[in-house]
Amino acid sequence: MRGYQKHYELFESYVERVKWTQEPEGLYAPVAYIMQLGGKRMRPVLFQMACELYGKRPEEHLPVGYAIELFHNFTLVHDDIMDDAPLRRGNTTVHEKYNLNTAILSGDVMLVQVYRFLQEHCPNQLNEVITVFNHAAIAVCEGQQRDMEFEERNRVKEEEYLEMIGQKTAALLSCSLQLGAIMAGAGKNDIKHIGQFGQLMGTAFQIQDDLLDSFGDPEKFGKQVGGDILQDKKTILLIHALDNSEGDDHLALKRLLANNGLEPEEKVTQMKALYEKTGAKAYAEQLRDSYHQQAMEQLNALQAPDERKQFIGEFAEWLLYRNV
Amino acid sequence: MRGYQKHYELFESYVERVKWTQEPEGLYAPVAYIMQLGGKRMRPVLFQMACELYGKRPEEHLPVGYAIELFHNFTLVHDDIMDDAPLRRGNTTVHEKYNLNTAILSGDVMLVQVYRFLQEHCPNQLNEVITVFNHAAIAVCEGQQRDMEFEERNRVKEEEYLEMIGQKTAALLSCSLQLGAIMAGAGKNDIKHIGQFGQLMGTAFQIQDDLLDSFGDPEKFGKQVGGDILQDKKTILLIHALDNSEGDDHLALKRLLANNGLEPEEKVTQMKALYEKTGAKAYAEQLRDSYHQQAMEQLNALQAPDERKQFIGEFAEWLLYRNV
Repeated sequence: MRGYQKHYELFESYVERVKWTQEPEGLYAPVAYIMQLGGKRMRPVLFQMACELYGKRPEEHLPVGYAIELFHNFTLVHDDIMDDAPLRRGNTTVHEKYNLNTAILSGDVMLVQVYRFLQEHCPNQLNEVITVFNHAAIAVCEGQQRDMEFEERNRVKEEEYLEMIGQKTAALLSCSLQLGAIMAGAGKNDIKHIGQFGQLMGTAFQIQDDLLDSFGDPEKFGKQVGGDILQDKKTILLIHALDNSEGDDHLALKRLLANNGLEPEEKVTQMKALYEKTGAKAYAEQLRDSYHQQAMEQLNALQAPDERKQFIGEFAEWLLYRNV
Repeated sequence: MRGYQKHYELFESYVERVKWTQEPEGLYAPVAYIMQLGGKRMRPVLFQMACELYGKRPEEHLPVGYAIELFHNFTLVHDDIMDDAPLRRGNTTVHEKYNLNTAILSGDVMLVQVYRFLQEHCPNQLNEVITVFNHAAIAVCEGQQRDMEFEERNRVKEEEYLEMIGQKTAALLSCSLQLGAIMAGAGKNDIKHIGQFGQLMGTAFQIQDDLLDSFGDPEKFGKQVGGDILQDKKTILLIHALDNSEGDDHLALKRLLANNGLEPEEKVTQMKALYEKTGAKAYAEQLRDSYHQQAMEQLNALQAPDERKQFIGEFAEWLLYRNV
């Protein structure tokens, strides 16, 4: 895909330049560790693409994209504690590699360092940058809280789910694009529209994530297919299936949810069959496509060169129809 | 003491006005809980006094003092997890009252909300305010890390201890005063000097805290006297006693440190006797007084009305020679 590779490499070159060798080492070594674990770097790439959309060289604003990625990684460190997760991107999580206290405190200093990067790099746009960033950071925390609360409940409404993923996932993607537009000096109207594009695209992205978790190709997916099903996670698939099934199907669904005696593979197979039979899979695909289409309308409305908009559009499409 | 009561009440009236009733309640109820547990409110009081020092009404800048107190309380929430502490100000700690995940995530959102208060209230001084605040916030995290690392070591040098308390305790007191001066439009030189006053005074304050923990009046102190001794905590008293004892005294000290079979009261009594005999108590008092004197020199150098400087000086004296 055009564009992505260049931005990815540009960002990685900056990641290598930020050393985290300061003292005390016990505080900063975990920061260096998590930041070099990699990932798609979606957020800084979107930031850089948004810079370029308005004719600015992303090379000049790499620390801002880095700040966003640092924030994202801070949330991973703390979320992994909350989820008691042993692995992140195939490597040991920070609280497992070091310990709980280190994971809490190194995460905390990462969050402060985010603001240091923003302050040092954006003295002239600081008010606007901090306003947009704070909004997203608060949304991410609120979304994580809602997500944890959903685990304790039997039922979650589709609108509650959509609000949660809008906060937990989409808000920071939206923020990345807005900050790119702000740093490049885009107009107020375009900053608003590119933010809406990110919000809609991020929502579609999370729906696709739910789909992949159950229906992804095990060869390509990287993580265990069916993880959400085995945890009885309230994904869009489960929510829609519960809301739109009757009689035997509904009963089978409820029995499957409560059933911990079944072999994991068997539970996944049966649940996937129910997601197909109740129309939950088709609905999720349609919902994803609908958010994608609405996102593209926002993108098209931007006052920027068509070719550059296409780079962002193609990247979004790749993210949404990926099978990894 | 003149001044303190007025500033304390002014601040408390603002604390009551900030409701934290937004959704999700599970995220914000712990914030409301910790913020109403009280305390001396040293940081916002110092902030307000510094505002007034340069002729500004603190009433107009209460959200900035609130942001500092919010940050301080965020550190208490996360530190209490790290110390596995059951009580804070005589009440259940957040992770005990709610749970670990809530304490982590509510703490995180508090830190973001600190920046929201600063951004919303200081649009015109944002760069300067965020710069000074970030510096202190990073110092607090680094100081906490060093403090935790000291627990794992047998010996700590006095200079390491002084660096640690300079970061963990004094940096935020210094920041409070600097932000007050900044919001009141003080000159660069005065901002620097009031910061140094805070740094020196904060160091003296922590030394006094160490002294009170061992030699405070149990009737007035509020917490268990001798807590540091029972935890073999590397306070200025223990560090000096280890560095400046020989022969039998040194041996007695080392034996006492390793001795977990002794009755707690007996261990505290014997250690206090050694602190007196080795001159550690007298040294700590002298060190405290020396920092206090240096702090007063910085205060006197400020280009502000003498009477207002006296308010701050008296408050510092009260904090340093308090027995509670």
